Amino acid sequence: MTTAILYPGKDGAGVIRRTVLPGGLRVVTETMPTVRSVAVGMWVGIGSRDEAPEHMGATHFLEHLLFKGTSTRDAMEISASIEGIGGEINAFTAKEYTCYYARVLDEDLPLAIDVLADVVTSSLITPEDVESERGVILEEIAMHDDDPSDVVHEQFSAELYGDTPIGRPILGNDESINALTRDRIHEYYQRYYLPPLTVVSVAGNVDHERVVELVATAYERAGALATAASPAAPRLDGPGVERRSGVRVVDRPTEQANLVLGTTGVSRRDDRRFALGMLNAALGGGMSSRLFQEIREKRGLAYSAYSYTSQYADTGQFGIYVGCLPSKIDDVLKICRDELARVVAHGITPEEITRGKGQMRGGLVLGLEDTGSRMSRIGKSELVYERLMPVDEVLARIEAVTPDDIAEVAQDILNRPLTLAVIGPYADKDFSGAIA
Amino acid sequence: MTTAILYPGKDGAGVIRRTVLPGGLRVVTETMPTVRSVAVGMWVGIGSRDEAPEHMGATHFLEHLLFKGTSTRDAMEISASIEGIGGEINAFTAKEYTCYYARVLDEDLPLAIDVLADVVTSSLITPEDVESERGVILEEIAMHDDDPSDVVHEQFSAELYGDTPIGRPILGNDESINALTRDRIHEYYQRYYLPPLTVVSVAGNVDHERVVELVATAYERAGALATAASPAAPRLDGPGVERRSGVRVVDRPTEQANLVLGTTGVSRRDDRRFALGMLNAALGGGMSSRLFQEIREKRGLAYSAYSYTSQYADTGQFGIYVGCLPSKIDDVLKICRDELARVVAHGITPEEITRGKGQMRGGLVLGLEDTGSRMSRIGKSELVYERLMPVDEVLARIEAVTPDDIAEVAQDILNRPLTLAVIGPYADKDFSGAIA
Repeated sequence: MTTAILYPGKDGAGVIRRTVLPGGLRVVTETMPTVRSVAVGMWVGIGSRDEAPEHMGATHFLEHLLFKGTSTRDAMEISASIEGIGGEINAFTAKEYTCYYARVLDEDLPLAIDVLADVVTSSLITPEDVESERGVILEEIAMHDDDPSDVVHEQFSAELYGDTPIGRPILGNDESINALTRDRIHEYYQRYYLPPLTVVSVAGNVDHERVVELVATAYERAGALATAASPAAPRLDGPGVERRSGVRVVDRPTEQANLVLGTTGVSRRDDRRFALGMLNAALGGGMSSRLFQEIREKRGLAYSAYSYTSQYADTGQFGIYVGCLPSKIDDVLKICRDELARVVAHGITPEEITRGKGQMRGGLVLGLEDTGSRMSRIGKSELVYERLMPVDEVLARIEAVTPDDIAEVAQDILNRPLTLAVIGPYADKDFSGAIA
Repeated sequence: MTTAILYPGKDGAGVIRRTVLPGGLRVVTETMPTVRSVAVGMWVGIGSRDEAPEHMGATHFLEHLLFKGTSTRDAMEISASIEGIGGEINAFTAKEYTCYYARVLDEDLPLAIDVLADVVTSSLITPEDVESERGVILEEIAMHDDDPSDVVHEQFSAELYGDTPIGRPILGNDESINALTRDRIHEYYQRYYLPPLTVVSVAGNVDHERVVELVATAYERAGALATAASPAAPRLDGPGVERRSGVRVVDRPTEQANLVLGTTGVSRRDDRRFALGMLNAALGGGMSSRLFQEIREKRGLAYSAYSYTSQYADTGQFGIYVGCLPSKIDDVLKICRDELARVVAHGITPEEITRGKGQMRGGLVLGLEDTGSRMSRIGKSELVYERLMPVDEVLARIEAVTPDDIAEVAQDILNRPLTLAVIGPYADKDFSGAIA
């Protein structure tokens, strides 16, 4: 059992420590001595992109089932234990990992660790629970289908990446969910929910050694640390993705058209992510961004208009989202394409660079004030990066971005063939020339 | 100018102070010495229920227009000033008040106060901006119309309160927004955006005297404190509302049916609000609640199922929301009605009372860890209550709730005639006997 200090902190706060337990289980903590809450996350290195095509939705289905009961707690006991102390417990499934988390008062840390470890290590996954939860998942899919802004993002990913693991929906679809058997889901649980693929991260007013002891006790009781192993390497790469360019139109009688226009961005470890972040801030990262100003402030064409970036092991996305009345979509698309062309040709202004740096710097500091976001930063980082980048270093990397860096990333990324997804009262042919 | 200590705090933290400036402007602050962020809110005592029927949506329209430009800043300068330092600035309109707020690093407090005060006191509201923003509001209405879970809540309020100020939508509708003139909106601005109706609340690592000085300087520069006045009394009551019972069905080809079933609850100052809060926690306040357990955990009939309460000056709501496949709505409605009847007949269990108290206690403490929620608590409290209730007292009130209190409030509130709103692929007659 080895403990390392990943970051020494300042004035006794923000110390980040890491311990590897026998079995390859990692525990990372960050001390925040002045808060009363503590956030605990258990991160497992399996996401929807690890699924075989015919098991689409299995990872997310499994995440739901883990709250249904363990050898010592039923579903009611799991939720009541944390809710009865005013805490929250929940989970989410992403394309490359799954996270179970809780936020409680610091005095309740032992309980939070015990419940989360129980759920992650000792779930029963009974056939009855699988059947009951299948209904819940089908409801969740229907709920997302009723939200056009969800649908358009999913359709954009599907069009950009095609029928590949990263292009498929995390929730699966009615057909795949109905086809999943208890044994198949259980197999994913046994294959992936292993200590070397798991990171426990805790942020708050905590003592690292005490956290390690609590985690070790909970996992040992489940017999989960018996086999000697080392932590798995982070998911540093993927099979690579085939970038596609196309238009996908979903005909729906919505009041607003919803569109996503974009292309592939940069992967998680690509050094250009800081320059792309600043480019994104200037293009559509807030109310002072070009797209917001042109589309909403000057023309009143939309309520919601923004751009975003996302990163995975081997790819990323850059996209623009706008929701507007169907009659305005041609104007909106023209503005989007014009603004993209303008930054490719001329980059962004010195004022925008200054503002982008201030925005990323301040946003980073403000965003790390609660225990939940610190817990997420260190947990996710341990799972997907080779090393934790201290906040100071992130700030330095932001500061170091030059106009040339931004021009370069704009000319690469924003010159790529575009993909467009639209949902609204349209036919395919309505957008036949939209991204030509 | 008088300053009072509303709460002495503990160990130098959590001190709450209040100063009344000439002109009747109130400034309340809460010290949180260990945080880096500061949250600033400017609360104005006007909401959608103050609108004449033909001006429906004027308060929210006005809120939008305040970000369009002042005598010294245009829309871009307003947003860029705060975003360029990584902060956020935004606003929301409720039925009884409007709030403009920002969250920034503590060193940027002077800028945040200056920008917010500028927006609140010195907006130009030009005819051109009114026309451009009219389009944005129509887009926002269309966006909400596309979200069935938004629509069902609005339809429930409309059915419960009828065509009264509190039953009408905050956004207005296409017709009312198209009919609003610049002069009409400007009149609301001049009539309501006055120092006696305004509260400035600040939470973070701040010095009260310094905050008062910054606020006074900003308001004085706008000439806004020249007329001597005292703060307006809080909105302690209203015209009273006529409670209605009925069924409203919106026929839409959605994947899920969305329903809200409920009735009027208690008003903001009603002492029974603590007992009703605990009843709500047991019925539908979390994953361990009766409705979640029956509808989702045991039967797999829904993804989202919860109950809620809301309070206004002279009324309140208690409601249950469920989203489920249309084929399951009869089962869901039966469970809702059975569970309501069960708590009316038998109250809730001692375990549920213990859990409810823990849930409200822990939730309150965890919920006040960030500057934004503390700023909201003291600002809203100053505007709508006669006095600020310290957190200790809230905790004591929660602790003091008895089983009899809960049984009594259940027998009053949950025995009232019910109102039902449903959106989904239905005809009116499908629910003709649903709430009989």
